[in-house]
Amino acid sequence: NFRHLHPTTFRDWLVANVIRSFSSGLLQTPRPVSCGVRCRELHAGEERPTPSPTAAPERRPFSRVTPEDMAFFSKIIPGRTITDPDILEASNVDWLKSVRGFSEVLLRPQTTEEVSQILGYCNSRNLAVSPQGGNTGLVGGSVPVYDEIILSTALMNNVLNFDSVSGILSCQAGCVLENLSLYLEDRDYIMPLDLGAKGSCHIGGNVATNAGGLRLLRYGSLRGTVLGLEVVLADGRVLDCLATLRKDNTGYDLKQLFIGSEGTLGVITAVTILCPRKPKAVNVAFLGCESFEQLLQTFQLCRGMLGEILSAFEFLDRECMRLLNTHLKLANPITDCPFYIVIETSGSNPTHDEEKLHQFLEEAMTSSQVIDGTVATEEAKIKALWSLRERVTEALTHDGFTYKYDISLPVERIYQLVTDMREHLGNRAKSVVGYGHVGDGNLHLNITSPTKDPDLLASIEPFVYEWTARFQGSISAEHGLGLKKRNYIYYSKASLAVALMGNIKIMLDPKGILNPYKTLPDDLQ
Amino acid sequence: NFRHLHPTTFRDWLVANVIRSFSSGLLQTPRPVSCGVRCRELHAGEERPTPSPTAAPERRPFSRVTPEDMAFFSKIIPGRTITDPDILEASNVDWLKSVRGFSEVLLRPQTTEEVSQILGYCNSRNLAVSPQGGNTGLVGGSVPVYDEIILSTALMNNVLNFDSVSGILSCQAGCVLENLSLYLEDRDYIMPLDLGAKGSCHIGGNVATNAGGLRLLRYGSLRGTVLGLEVVLADGRVLDCLATLRKDNTGYDLKQLFIGSEGTLGVITAVTILCPRKPKAVNVAFLGCESFEQLLQTFQLCRGMLGEILSAFEFLDRECMRLLNTHLKLANPITDCPFYIVIETSGSNPTHDEEKLHQFLEEAMTSSQVIDGTVATEEAKIKALWSLRERVTEALTHDGFTYKYDISLPVERIYQLVTDMREHLGNRAKSVVGYGHVGDGNLHLNITSPTKDPDLLASIEPFVYEWTARFQGSISAEHGLGLKKRNYIYYSKASLAVALMGNIKIMLDPKGILNPYKTLPDDLQ
Repeated sequence: NFRHLHPTTFRDWLVANVIRSFSSGLLQTPRPVSCGVRCRELHAGEERPTPSPTAAPERRPFSRVTPEDMAFFSKIIPGRTITDPDILEASNVDWLKSVRGFSEVLLRPQTTEEVSQILGYCNSRNLAVSPQGGNTGLVGGSVPVYDEIILSTALMNNVLNFDSVSGILSCQAGCVLENLSLYLEDRDYIMPLDLGAKGSCHIGGNVATNAGGLRLLRYGSLRGTVLGLEVVLADGRVLDCLATLRKDNTGYDLKQLFIGSEGTLGVITAVTILCPRKPKAVNVAFLGCESFEQLLQTFQLCRGMLGEILSAFEFLDRECMRLLNTHLKLANPITDCPFYIVIETSGSNPTHDEEKLHQFLEEAMTSSQVIDGTVATEEAKIKALWSLRERVTEALTHDGFTYKYDISLPVERIYQLVTDMREHLGNRAKSVVGYGHVGDGNLHLNITSPTKDPDLLASIEPFVYEWTARFQGSISAEHGLGLKKRNYIYYSKASLAVALMGNIKIMLDPKGILNPYKTLPDDLQ
Repeated sequence: NFRHLHPTTFRDWLVANVIRSFSSGLLQTPRPVSCGVRCRELHAGEERPTPSPTAAPERRPFSRVTPEDMAFFSKIIPGRTITDPDILEASNVDWLKSVRGFSEVLLRPQTTEEVSQILGYCNSRNLAVSPQGGNTGLVGGSVPVYDEIILSTALMNNVLNFDSVSGILSCQAGCVLENLSLYLEDRDYIMPLDLGAKGSCHIGGNVATNAGGLRLLRYGSLRGTVLGLEVVLADGRVLDCLATLRKDNTGYDLKQLFIGSEGTLGVITAVTILCPRKPKAVNVAFLGCESFEQLLQTFQLCRGMLGEILSAFEFLDRECMRLLNTHLKLANPITDCPFYIVIETSGSNPTHDEEKLHQFLEEAMTSSQVIDGTVATEEAKIKALWSLRERVTEALTHDGFTYKYDISLPVERIYQLVTDMREHLGNRAKSVVGYGHVGDGNLHLNITSPTKDPDLLASIEPFVYEWTARFQGSISAEHGLGLKKRNYIYYSKASLAVALMGNIKIMLDPKGILNPYKTLPDDLQ
């Protein structure tokens, strides 16, 4: 059983074996929550197949929810203990409809105290819990795997405080990112992060997954902008690290443990975050390049000439544009090109920003780095140009079954992976597309097929991970590991590092009730 | 003995007691390394005094260095095992000359492998180790307390790699900050941090103490800019988290544990850090205000009008200027004022930056927020203006014995603490001065007396900590806790948080050999 191998051995195993996946097929093999052991379709006489690293491991011996447990929950949060199967359905299945859990209980606390009581109880009863924000994750981290109790932050959606001098916002974990953005815009500030899922995702989930998104290039990661967290630990104790200070060097920075831990170490109940001033001017340019080399030259030119006002440098390839045209009827506003760039500037002086942008565009056109382009300054046109980048994910869902990879690499390398993958797969894939955050060295590689295709998957993985590891990349730049990528962690992290993660998990959640089967590899769980 | 009280009880004790300090007097009571138990000057018939929270606790039962140990070290790092008392003197005493250790061995490894062998050996022999960078810390964190072996990073000073496309620098921990700055300036980049001690401090020490400094307002904290670390753990194992990627969400971010842990969890041997482009234009304005209220109004105006080019907003008060005049013969370039501001802009377009700055200054002068000022664009004059801010620390050392406090507060509050302290102390102090980083809400409160004065100290502490805790501030914004402030941690951190820090310490350094008596309070050690 590969779950009990030593990390190093396991890594070797991972690299050496062709992966025969029947695993992302959770939707194909629904089973009653009481089944306990994962159903496996074995044919008589066949050898038992090697389980795929993405498959869920067997259910661990957590307790099952009893009527007494239900009575307890109903007493703590009356009317907010949900068992209606229709409501549960949306919380059991992820946004991509790629994984499904079989939880029969959804809890909707409103306060930290309620979360504390719930976790204290679940821990004492050995009941597993799957914390859930907006359920917009892409790696199967936000839904239960078996019958874990779903603990939703949906009703924890109050702004607690906003200091208009410092720009520091305190809010509950269930605030929807877009609502916070609107709240702040009225007060002349913006959120330091923005992402396609903003209309649904919760700030607590953003922090728990260390979401990156479109503004990281300018405002940095959540590791710098999140100033404080309130977290309920597995045993119900409330860890108050909800500072509202830009600087605090008193001891170890515990909140960092919870940023990006995907709900496996504690449940984030409140967040304080440093927000930048709302820029007085925003411009967006949509440009086309002949080659990825030219795109990189444009990036370098842009960083020099736009400097401090550059707030995003994103790209999509010709294949993405084709999918936008085909599936969403979005028109290409410029000449057909192999590569498209979205550049955003945000600054405090509209005249200066326009001057900088025009000087840059003139230089880029003159030196033939860019072959066509359009610029927007009004909000509607800005939104339209941004949607070409933001709606690629949606276009992909209409193209077929999608295999998603979120890779960090030295920026010069990021498109080579797409080219190599195309060549490697030949005509076995329907589409192989690349887009992402050039400024962060972050590629979103997506591959589609008409229906789920285990053979295709076996051609993609571990090829994609080995390729990434060869160039010291990260196999998950911003999406996290969740259920689907947990066993690939060794491609990006040393065995000692993973072992220490396991120690931290045991320290904070000794019974392992928080978001089990996620983030950490099976050999550690 | 207060070291064994429960956190909460200890906190109460701390708040309730007048502190009779004889403790920062380590320099007054040097004793041979073999003495073991701290010398205490007790007078016959007197009650044993309550130990001050800043006093060193008793020596823990670590082994003592034997000739066999010395032979081992000399074999691993021949010629770099130092026992010369004159050389050791500089490593045993801190920059402020406020604390002294009694180490008889200074080790100067050159490679990570050597550090690994040294720590592996020390851990097996139960020998305590005090890691040391540039020894510029202000809280007694960088020197031994008793006979800990000093492990210096001074010879680990190589740049490992610099990627001029991404601006990512990899270097050994012992590189001096200023040398890295010069290295990068030749390559059109700068370090994301800058501080007064840059000529001596090591990047490893900067990271280990999570140094803030003058550029944090613009480039953010090391929690965002440090992309990777290599750390040798207490038992000699090498933890390789030396990624050179802007984004990596594969598991928990272990490197964050070591940032700001003051060498108590591991020895940082290499760092990768994201460096910003060198700005094409830098301007500095030195301004005077009638009141702190006006200074804050100027800050708000400045953030709006200078926006993305604002790279520093620092202040000093009239008392600081007096000390600069008196002790360093630095002249005030403008009219005498109660408050002085240093504003720095850094941008990519000199014309735009000057326009923004002039528009801002016109507005600030017209609205009478600022009563006088001068602007510099040439490097020599910029340096001269900056020195008025950067050399306050040095001026203070000439004024007498200095009590130093490094406080984070909501920015509106920061000067009120100086005013209240002046009133509280009356004529008992020689000088009470305030300066610091307005943009970060970070006050440096300094109090001097002709000689060390335990009564004065008893008036300052815990008053200053209680005041800070009342307004949810941090009792150490950027200096860390080290030896001197370790027991005050409960003023800024909840008991549960401190207890978890203790668990992390035990997990990573079960024998407690790394920088003992530092960072964590005595009741946890």
